[in-house]
Amino acid sequence: MSKAIFYHAGCPVCVEAEQKVAQAIDSSKYQVENVHLGEDASRIAEAEKAGVKSVPAMVLDGVPFHINFGAKLSDLK
Amino acid sequence: MSKAIFYHAGCPVCVEAEQKVAQAIDSSKYQVENVHLGEDASRIAEAEKAGVKSVPAMVLDGVPFHINFGAKLSDLK
Repeated sequence: MSKAIFYHAGCPVCVEAEQKVAQAIDSSKYQVENVHLGEDASRIAEAEKAGVKSVPAMVLDGVPFHINFGAKLSDLK
Repeated sequence: MSKAIFYHAGCPVCVEAEQKVAQAIDSSKYQVENVHLGEDASRIAEAEKAGVKSVPAMVLDGVPFHINFGAKLSDLK
């Protein structure tokens, strides 16, 4: 199964994206993981490595997609 | 069934988003429509009304989500 990682920081823009976009992902194709970078800063490096610049973002099979704009990744450090 | 409209303009960023994000949407929940605003400029007004500022963008149940950045909507007019 493919992997979808939704990175967020609990911001209003993030919550809206989680409720709409992350929930719309086909769970028969993708295993969706939600990662709150504000609470789990140890995963910021992994998000950066995948090309994530801001949250909310969804990484699908390693490809980063920034969804609207909530906060810069650098502001979460 | 809910409605997902994917607005794009055929740009490389758009194609990547279409191949990954639009394809990942659960088709049992959403009826996905792809709209090429470069070829169908008559629908730019509709996209604007939904809050779309740039492409690629996905409108889920009327809520706009900009996915990365390909081109400003105003540049497609």
